[in-house]
Order: sequence, then structure tokens, then C-alpha cells
Amino acid sequence: MNNFIKTVREKSPLVHCITNYVTVNDVANIILAIGASPVMADGIHEVEDVTSRSDALVINLGTLNERTIDSMILAGKKANELGHPIIFDPVGAGASTYRTETSKRLLAEIRPAVIRGNASEIKAISGMNSDSRGVDAGGLDVMTEENLELFTKLLKDLSLRYQTVAAMTGSIDLLSDGTSSCIVRNGHSWMSKITGTGCMLDGVLAAFLGSVSGNPLKTCAASIAATGLCGEIAYEMSKEKGTGSFRTAFLDAVSRLDDELLKEGGRIEIR
Amino acid sequence: MNNFIKTVREKSPLVHCITNYVTVNDVANIILAIGASPVMADGIHEVEDVTSRSDALVINLGTLNERTIDSMILAGKKANELGHPIIFDPVGAGASTYRTETSKRLLAEIRPAVIRGNASEIKAISGMNSDSRGVDAGGLDVMTEENLELFTKLLKDLSLRYQTVAAMTGSIDLLSDGTSSCIVRNGHSWMSKITGTGCMLDGVLAAFLGSVSGNPLKTCAASIAATGLCGEIAYEMSKEKGTGSFRTAFLDAVSRLDDELLKEGGRIEIR
Amino acid sequence: MNNFIKTVREKSPLVHCITNYVTVNDVANIILAIGASPVMADGIHEVEDVTSRSDALVINLGTLNERTIDSMILAGKKANELGHPIIFDPVGAGASTYRTETSKRLLAEIRPAVIRGNASEIKAISGMNSDSRGVDAGGLDVMTEENLELFTKLLKDLSLRYQTVAAMTGSIDLLSDGTSSCIVRNGHSWMSKITGTGCMLDGVLAAFLGSVSGNPLKTCAASIAATGLCGEIAYEMSKEKGTGSFRTAFLDAVSRLDDELLKEGGRIEIR
Repeated sequence: MNNFIKTVREKSPLVHCITNYVTVNDVANIILAIGASPVMADGIHEVEDVTSRSDALVINLGTLNERTIDSMILAGKKANELGHPIIFDPVGAGASTYRTETSKRLLAEIRPAVIRGNASEIKAISGMNSDSRGVDAGGLDVMTEENLELFTKLLKDLSLRYQTVAAMTGSIDLLSDGTSSCIVRNGHSWMSKITGTGCMLDGVLAAFLGSVSGNPLKTCAASIAATGLCGEIAYEMSKEKGTGSFRTAFLDAVSRLDDELLKEGGRIEIR
Repeated sequence: MNNFIKTVREKSPLVHCITNYVTVNDVANIILAIGASPVMADGIHEVEDVTSRSDALVINLGTLNERTIDSMILAGKKANELGHPIIFDPVGAGASTYRTETSKRLLAEIRPAVIRGNASEIKAISGMNSDSRGVDAGGLDVMTEENLELFTKLLKDLSLRYQTVAAMTGSIDLLSDGTSSCIVRNGHSWMSKITGTGCMLDGVLAAFLGSVSGNPLKTCAASIAATGLCGEIAYEMSKEKGTGSFRTAFLDAVSRLDDELLKEGGRIEIR
Repeated sequence: MNNFIKTVREKSPLVHCITNYVTVNDVANIILAIGASPVMADGIHEVEDVTSRSDALVINLGTLNERTIDSMILAGKKANELGHPIIFDPVGAGASTYRTETSKRLLAEIRPAVIRGNASEIKAISGMNSDSRGVDAGGLDVMTEENLELFTKLLKDLSLRYQTVAAMTGSIDLLSDGTSSCIVRNGHSWMSKITGTGCMLDGVLAAFLGSVSGNPLKTCAASIAATGLCGEIAYEMSKEKGTGSFRTAFLDAVSRLDDELLKEGGRIEIR
């Protein structure tokens, strides 16, 4: 594995996020903790300007509304024009028709470097029925060893259709770039007991893709392993206390992560 | 007392929140900590869809603007149609004419299961002069043993007018369903030293009312006792440190709360 | 130095904030921790009403959009009319043309008591080229012992032009009221490793200026020293853990700060 963390901290990429007002503070803090610099700007009059000066763009549908969709499209087109990686997170696709339709509309207009969602969201944007529970994957969409093959196929198709890395995260994390696929077996169930770990992963993906050149699939897998590993470390630090302490310990772990820890603890399987 | 916490964790209701951008992250985290699932969505094109798939709805006026009022009304009407409980929090009623008028407008259009506010807010929506200090109750509106009777009468009237449980929270918590009333003597003054404990209580009320059938007054009293008890526990864990640690410890306490603790520590007096 | 903290806690001023959705929760919490009371309201129909009932106003451009600019101007004019201090933070001026232009437009319409920004922002609103990195100062704009004179001159000019205290914060903090200038040498580099310490300082400035009468330059310097000192204390409490713990410890330190600590630890040099 490359020196991902060192590279991020040396380059300190500027990450432009058009994200939701629920977890935006957590996203800014994790981007800082991993060694990059966040700028949250969604005003229609400035998003192109801000994206032009940035190194990567996060588009996250967490609290979607008409005003920000136009900003997402403008920023996304500019990022595509400049070759900046876009991380697209179709939060809640499947949970409302509006989110499913908006996800498809965005994918028709912009070309993300990564599409990342939970199983329900990935199924919804693939045109399948999903069992979403709001912004979380529903019970029928839990990832297990049994449905890994099925989900890998879904990701491969999505990847080929949009010329992107497609990633499905949950109890197990899967990625495909259309040719190869990866399984990442890091993370802890408490990551779903606090809000925002998915959105925070978007920020880490942007920090990595905005700094590291080369194989995007491997870079995405490393981002996901790094974030999951910090969840494991945070659990060990906070399990006697509760999820408030876990939240703090998670940010602590990201701020202290280095390439040694990642090489030792990352569990990435390339297929 | 019933097995409230166990019931919430088994059912894990989906709680739709149209709330404010100040404390929304805290509300999502407490909903997760108590064992339910949050979905924050305020877009006019999706609120009915999201509410239809949820088990309870929070409407909180914390950062009111024209865009979200329409979403609140649409979601509220849908929740009423489907029989989902609505928790209505008239944040800052009395602090601006706009908030007082909007509270009344919403109450004319939707039927909440609970109206919860501080003394200034409850007085304002009852048509009395209030001494609000922004989103906090003003000095003249502090609840004391002396004005309990007066405030109980106010809540009873409000309850009967809107066919709802009316709850006034502060140093002492009072509730009425028009027939019976409750006093809850849990909580700690440090809960007013961090932002969002009122909004977080809205989330707990929604999680409880979205899972537990039967007597709404008792269920509301249990929600308020549970939240207050976690404030007491958090204070014990953090008093040597300060309010940052209190905030973390409060979420810890909610995530570890169980029915044994609640039965032992809840101080609910039914009148 | 006066009894600043005691004065803030006795008066407990109401601070009206029109700020950004990234750090608004942190700002509300620090305002509470220092002993004041926050009210976050940006709706066009209520900002004048809310400002009228408050003691100070924060205008922060963090997540600028058309809707809130009008609210900022309305609230600002009302605050000026009533003589309430305004803290103006041109977040990201220089990072987009829209922010630079909006900053200038606001300064043409309202008269702040303090303009506070990082070096890139202050340069941008002074009409100079800046090296902003999103909402952070760029590498060419780092404050050093060598460029203190240059920056002091810039602040003096800005101060005289807008009849305000002008403050530039970074590794060293500089202030000018046009006649005198101050250097504050408190703070810790970890304050730039979490989001929102600048926005939180805006809240502390508002709490101090909303309570303490007399010399605004000294009051601003004390606010900046107090906030920086809490950063130093927080670092000592969290350096073995990471930036998540630093964030919690920072709020702890503010909630426990008193005038003794501030007198002992504040490093203010008046020129």
C-alpha cells in the first residue's frame, strides 16, 4: 500500500463540499483531521469559482432542496471540465422519489470519479427496488457473505455505465471499477450508531483522490479501509462509555492515523 | 413503568425531522442513541414521501424560514392523515412576531400529538405576554414550585384547545393531556448550558411515541424523565471537566440507558 | 485587565447570530459556555425583531447565499440604529469573487464594531490580492514577526476607513482601532485543526462587546486572548488523544474560564 496518509498531509488538498446541514460540521472536521482543508460553499453565484480553486468536490444529497441541486450541477460540470475528482453520495436514494430522480438527473449531467452509497441507495440508482429506511439501508438490504456476488455484479454494472468507481458501504464494503473489484473488511457496527460516518467517508475519499494520483480503485479502497480502521480504534477507546465518546474518539483516531497503522490494520482484498 | 427503552430499541422507529440547522446533528445523534433511526428532510418535493415511510414527525421552528414552513404544513397534514404522531416545538415563539404567528398558523393546520416548549414559548402560543430571551425562557418565566398551579392550568387549556399533550420543560417539567397532569423532576441545570437539549428531547419524544402504543401522557412523561435522567448522569460524569465533556457524556448516557435505570431514576408524579 | 468574564456572566447578553450552517452549533455552544445566550435566526421576516431584543449581532459569511444576505443587511441596519455592536466576519473573502463583493456591499451598508478575519480575508476586503485557500489563509498570507508591521498598517487603514476595530487572527493576532494597535500572543496551532474556531471567536467577541462598555480595542483584545488561552489549555488536556478530544476540551476550557486565569494567561501587548 502506498503512503496515502503522508501524501494527503503533504499536499493538503482543498476539498469543496456541497453537502447536507446535518453532518457538515463532522465532514469539515474529518477533512481537517486527515490533513486536508475543507470549504463548504453551495451558493449558486460562487460554486464554480470555489470548485475551480479546489482539488476535489463532494456532492452529497443529505438534505436536498431545489436551491442546492442547481449548485451541484454547476459545480460538477466545472469540476469535470478541470478534471477534479467528484465524490457523489446519493443519500436517501430510494427513500423518496425526489431523491432517486435527482440522483439520476445528476448522473446524467456530471461524471463522478466515485459513486458511494449504502446497499439501498446503490440499488435505487441502479433501478432496482430498494428497502431503504430513510437515509439508512433497510433490513432486506443488509450485506452478507451470501449476497456479495450479487452486489459485486451490481457495482460492476454501475461502474461501467457511468465510467466510475462504484462503492457500496455497510457491514462489509465493496468496490468496483468495472474491471476489478475490492472487498474491505474494516469498520465497526458503532459507526452506524452515530450520524455522519458515511458523509465523513465522502470527505476522506475526496481528500485521498484529491492528493493521490494513480489507480482510483486502490485509492478508494484505502480511503474506506482508513475510515473503517479509525472506527475500530474508536470503538476500543470508547466501548465502556457510549456513542458520544465514540464520536470524539473517531475524530481522534483519524487525526492520529498514519501509514504504518493503515498498512497494519487495513483489510483490503482485491479480486 | 413500561419497558419503554426496550420497545424503542426493538421497533427502531424511523423519525422524520423538519428541524433547525443549529442542533440538527445533535438531534440525529440522540435519535440513534435511544435506538431509533433519524431522517432529516425538508424539501417541499419530498416531505410527504418521507413522512409516509416514517413512524413519527418532529416539527421544530428553530431556524424558521418561508421555505420550510410550507414543508412543515405538507408533512404535518400527511402525518395526520396517516395517524403518525407529530411533536411540535414552537422554538422562540414570543421572541419574534414571526415565530408566534407561524406557531399559531401551524396549529391551525396540523394536529400535533405533543406541543413542547419552555415557559416563554408556551405562554406565547397561549396568547399571553411572555418574557422570552431569544430561544430561552426569560427570567420572569422561570418555573418554580409557586407557579406550578398556574402553569398546569395553562397547559390544561392548551391541551384541550388543540386535543394534544401539552408539555412545558424547564427546571421542572410539566405535562397535561387535558384530563391528567404530570410533573417530572429529572434533569440538571447544565442541560441549559449546552445548545439543543430541548430539540434533542423532541427527538426522544418522537422515538417513544413512534414505538409505544397506549397512554400518550405517560409515554411523554417517560421520554422527558429519560432525557432528564441522562442529563443527571452526564453531569456526574463531567462536572470536573466542563460543558464540552457534559455534551459528550449526555449522548453516552442516552446510548447506555435501559429500563432498569429509568425505573430507578425517573421521578414522575401523576396528578 | 477588567473583570471581563464576570461581567459577561452577570449580564448574560443575548447574541443574535446570522452565521453559517457548518459551525453554527459550535458557535451556540461557545456563547453559552462563556456565559451569554445565543439566538440563531436568519429569516427575513424576523431578523429585525430578533436583533431589537438582542445585545449584539454576529454577521458571518461562512455559507453565503442570496436569502441570507438580505437578512444580514436588514439586521445590520437595525443593530446600527439601536447602537448594538456588530461583529462582521468576511469568511472566505478572496476565495470567491462573490464573497469579496458581498463583503464590500455589506460594509457599504452597515457599520460593524469589529471586522475580524484571517490574513487572506483582511487583504481581500482591503482590495489587495490574497492567497486564500477556501476559508483558510493561504501559505503566502501566514503572519510572521516579519510582516507584523505591514499587517498592522493594513488594519489601521481598514479601521479608519470603516470606523471600526479591525482584527486579523492567525498564528499571531493583530488588532487596530485606527489610533492604537494590539498584538495578542495566545492560541495554539491545533485551533486550525478543527473547524469553527474563528466563528466561535466571533461569538466570544459579541458576548464581550455586548456586555462590557468602554474601550472596544481592549475588549476585543481580551476576547481574542480568552479564546486563544482556552485553545492552549485544551491542547494540554488533549494532546495525547487527538483533535476530537481537543474540540471537547476547548469547550470545557471556555466554560471554566475565569478572570484570574485570563489575567494570568492573557498575553496582550498594546502599542
